[in-house]
Amino acid sequence: MKAALVVVAVWVGVSGVMGGNPQVKPTVGQVWPSPQMQQPNKTYVIVRPETFKFTTTGHDCDILRNATQRYMKIMFPTKGSRRSPIQPWSKTEAFTGYLDEVTINLMAPCEEKPYHDMDEHYQIKIDSPDAQGTGTIMAQSIWGILRGLETFSQMLIPDGSAFMVNSTQIMDFPRFGHRGLMLDTSRHYLPVAVLKENLDLMAMNKFNVFHWHLVDDQSFPYVSTAFPNLSKLGAYTERHIYTPANVAEIVEYARLRGIRVLPEFDTPGHTQSWGPGQPGLLTPCYTGSTPSGTFGPINPINEDNYNFLKDFFTEVTTKRFTDHYVHLGGDEVSFGCWESNPNITAYMAEHNITGDYSKLEQVYITKLLDVIAHLPNKNGYLVWQEVFDNGVKIANDTIVHVWKGGSKASEEMNKVTKAGYQTILSSCWYLNYINYGVDWHGYYDCDPTDFKGTDAQKQLVLGGEACMWGEYVDRTNLIARTWPRASVVAEKLWSAFDQTQSTDAATPRLEEHRCRLLGRGYGVEPLWPSFCEADI
Amino acid sequence: MKAALVVVAVWVGVSGVMGGNPQVKPTVGQVWPSPQMQQPNKTYVIVRPETFKFTTTGHDCDILRNATQRYMKIMFPTKGSRRSPIQPWSKTEAFTGYLDEVTINLMAPCEEKPYHDMDEHYQIKIDSPDAQGTGTIMAQSIWGILRGLETFSQMLIPDGSAFMVNSTQIMDFPRFGHRGLMLDTSRHYLPVAVLKENLDLMAMNKFNVFHWHLVDDQSFPYVSTAFPNLSKLGAYTERHIYTPANVAEIVEYARLRGIRVLPEFDTPGHTQSWGPGQPGLLTPCYTGSTPSGTFGPINPINEDNYNFLKDFFTEVTTKRFTDHYVHLGGDEVSFGCWESNPNITAYMAEHNITGDYSKLEQVYITKLLDVIAHLPNKNGYLVWQEVFDNGVKIANDTIVHVWKGGSKASEEMNKVTKAGYQTILSSCWYLNYINYGVDWHGYYDCDPTDFKGTDAQKQLVLGGEACMWGEYVDRTNLIARTWPRASVVAEKLWSAFDQTQSTDAATPRLEEHRCRLLGRGYGVEPLWPSFCEADI
Repeated sequence: MKAALVVVAVWVGVSGVMGGNPQVKPTVGQVWPSPQMQQPNKTYVIVRPETFKFTTTGHDCDILRNATQRYMKIMFPTKGSRRSPIQPWSKTEAFTGYLDEVTINLMAPCEEKPYHDMDEHYQIKIDSPDAQGTGTIMAQSIWGILRGLETFSQMLIPDGSAFMVNSTQIMDFPRFGHRGLMLDTSRHYLPVAVLKENLDLMAMNKFNVFHWHLVDDQSFPYVSTAFPNLSKLGAYTERHIYTPANVAEIVEYARLRGIRVLPEFDTPGHTQSWGPGQPGLLTPCYTGSTPSGTFGPINPINEDNYNFLKDFFTEVTTKRFTDHYVHLGGDEVSFGCWESNPNITAYMAEHNITGDYSKLEQVYITKLLDVIAHLPNKNGYLVWQEVFDNGVKIANDTIVHVWKGGSKASEEMNKVTKAGYQTILSSCWYLNYINYGVDWHGYYDCDPTDFKGTDAQKQLVLGGEACMWGEYVDRTNLIARTWPRASVVAEKLWSAFDQTQSTDAATPRLEEHRCRLLGRGYGVEPLWPSFCEADI
Repeated sequence: MKAALVVVAVWVGVSGVMGGNPQVKPTVGQVWPSPQMQQPNKTYVIVRPETFKFTTTGHDCDILRNATQRYMKIMFPTKGSRRSPIQPWSKTEAFTGYLDEVTINLMAPCEEKPYHDMDEHYQIKIDSPDAQGTGTIMAQSIWGILRGLETFSQMLIPDGSAFMVNSTQIMDFPRFGHRGLMLDTSRHYLPVAVLKENLDLMAMNKFNVFHWHLVDDQSFPYVSTAFPNLSKLGAYTERHIYTPANVAEIVEYARLRGIRVLPEFDTPGHTQSWGPGQPGLLTPCYTGSTPSGTFGPINPINEDNYNFLKDFFTEVTTKRFTDHYVHLGGDEVSFGCWESNPNITAYMAEHNITGDYSKLEQVYITKLLDVIAHLPNKNGYLVWQEVFDNGVKIANDTIVHVWKGGSKASEEMNKVTKAGYQTILSSCWYLNYINYGVDWHGYYDCDPTDFKGTDAQKQLVLGGEACMWGEYVDRTNLIARTWPRASVVAEKLWSAFDQTQSTDAATPRLEEHRCRLLGRGYGVEPLWPSFCEADI
């Protein structure tokens, strides 16, 4: 293989600069997020859809078979929907042969399901030693193979009825182990089909955690078999729900794409929708000495509630979700209702915490964490930053989810890691906050390790999550508003620090990636004045 | 008919307030935009899809036949997509009979195409004198009949396999004659199918002007037969275009819905994409004494350009578009390039306007207006406010389009009308400016006549337009981002002043309307945490 550090794609002509007005010129055949190491060559091979196939050496499993079938469809859509890139490839490289086969070499047995810190390394080699293209995707884990397949699919450059692929060697792995995207299915219901579409896009951007904020004040779409009244009385309607079969379908769909599903059941606040289905759970608010008929956060002084939580989370972690982790929420607890309730007041006096409602919150969280610590599967957990901020005693391996401060979360990241806790960052990646104009630069300029702290502290940063809260999104605008803005976060979390320092350099690559996703059939929105072949 | 001023729909139960958290409760069977006069009755009739039909007394024409067929499909979609309202109707009214027929009484011959200030009055009477429902939609013009059909379709309340309709009398007409929505097909191309979808939604909100900002700096998708190079070299690609057949299709689709298509060809600025296809049109910019290779606004001192403009606008107004009006743009002319050009400098010295570039702009606009004044069809025109602001002499019947100042455009509205010009307002209705949160209150609180001025001045306010500039929208997000936010503007422009003073009162009606549009198959976005039957 004649390795040479040349630029893979050289731009030609002004075909994309019509009207005399400079447009963003997309790259051709560049991979998003950027691989850690990529060595292009001065030759290219041609892939013909009719003859191309994936073959498997080494280990095999259902995830692999499903993935190769899936990527054949992604790479070779029906002729009608095939799109040529608007910027032609320069073809300064030499054609050296046809690539009729890519060998997938999984070097260790398949793991059954994705998990935190799973191995996602992979290598790709495309070459043509004897006027015949050869290609290999190899990895120690099925998760690496999945990432490699996505990368390979992005290297194909449509050329008439075939595809060109640069003879490239890639060695790739993620910078961070936790690369998440959070969706909220309480403020608006999101159909299963939309969640799947989002999982497709997550896989195409190498995200590996779908953080599912299932329930909140507004509605309780999650169906619990043990407590069916929660959704029966808490969902918007009896059709706005996720049945056990729906959840299983989502978990399986994600598993096949190397994506963990991290369920969140946020307590003690954000729980209004739990109330009707579980009498006694929420704190009755008082007006003077009489209950007002409204309710506040979970009632921390009702001991029955901890039995309920034990049974509820046991079902969640043993019968519905398969991930080791569960997100326990813990954010934004408002104290007004607790303050109004005379029984709470009496309890606090008795326990010498009168007036200190964050101490009361601590009572609740401490008991909840005790419930979680004794779950059958010994699950790990994440909490929103307030739980740490309020000084609640949390397990050493708790992951603290930092969300406050917008682009100024470095102080909190420093504090959390100084205290020895693992952390993930979302503050700068609240995609629901929309603005007129170009807003992705802020996402790209944000880095989870950009805080004062020791190397040991930085090691505790597991990654981050883009969040799309659901107040103003539903099936009509979720995909367009989330993507490709989440792609920007995906690259920050996957690619090397040095590769993600310039929005200028990212722009033409992001343009190609956006048109790629649009061409694959996903309604991802434009980021600037632009055009794609798939516009029409 | 026993008329009584009762509230048509009374809300029942808490079926929409699950989770104990107050949600916006949609109205049931309320019309958006609100009719000028509506007198509900204490009885209701039932419409059965199998037996219902429209009949015609009075005049008939293709527009009417097309409309009744269209509304049968809108009112009675295939069973699979039928949705019941989530809030049941209270049925405190008495059932009095089946409504098997609505008579359409068009009292004057059909006009061929919609035009400015066309008559849009209509009346609807639903009654049941002899245990048999009777219904009439009557109007002096086909345009009124179209508006009445939309209103009637919104009065149907799904009830099992049939529909309930309150025995209502409505007399309705628009507050303003110019109720427009502007789309920009230059920054991003919008497929014809999306433009049609938008026209559907416009008709469902009683808009009557589609202001089509066809071309701009970024691309020139409009195909001119006389000057084919404009799109050939100025469109994004040879597929990102609107052929004469496409334009005819859009104009006809709009005509059948009582919507005028107002084409805008914005000059002398915003014309970068015109340059490659029409050498000599744009001003060459200079670096020192040599041309820099870049171009500025249309070159006002090249006399050939006025012949070009004459031929170009003649084609536009005689062969492509049928409306009496054309929008001539005239906004945001930047002077930098003119300043750099020595020939321009010499011309200005010669004409004693050295240094005063708005005078030069005035030279251009004056000559352009002379071209327009001599077009074969003697078209009227609109201009953006700068043309007025810069003191250009414009025809007395020019319509000045006010767009600056956001919510503070009243000073400009006062000035324009004081000078005796007709005007339309867009400043507060730039839908492309998005923000996180609830932003429609600002649209609803804005009123085109909210400025200091005499009654005679207010009479010069023809209405307004919602604008969706295209920098950040294309087929993926245009419909969701434009609607139902444009619906808010639609009501401000149609309904009586007194009826549109409270966002609180509008909220449950807007919620019903949004779910209605969603249920009809349009991907219109949510405005707050909510749910619709059509979510799933």
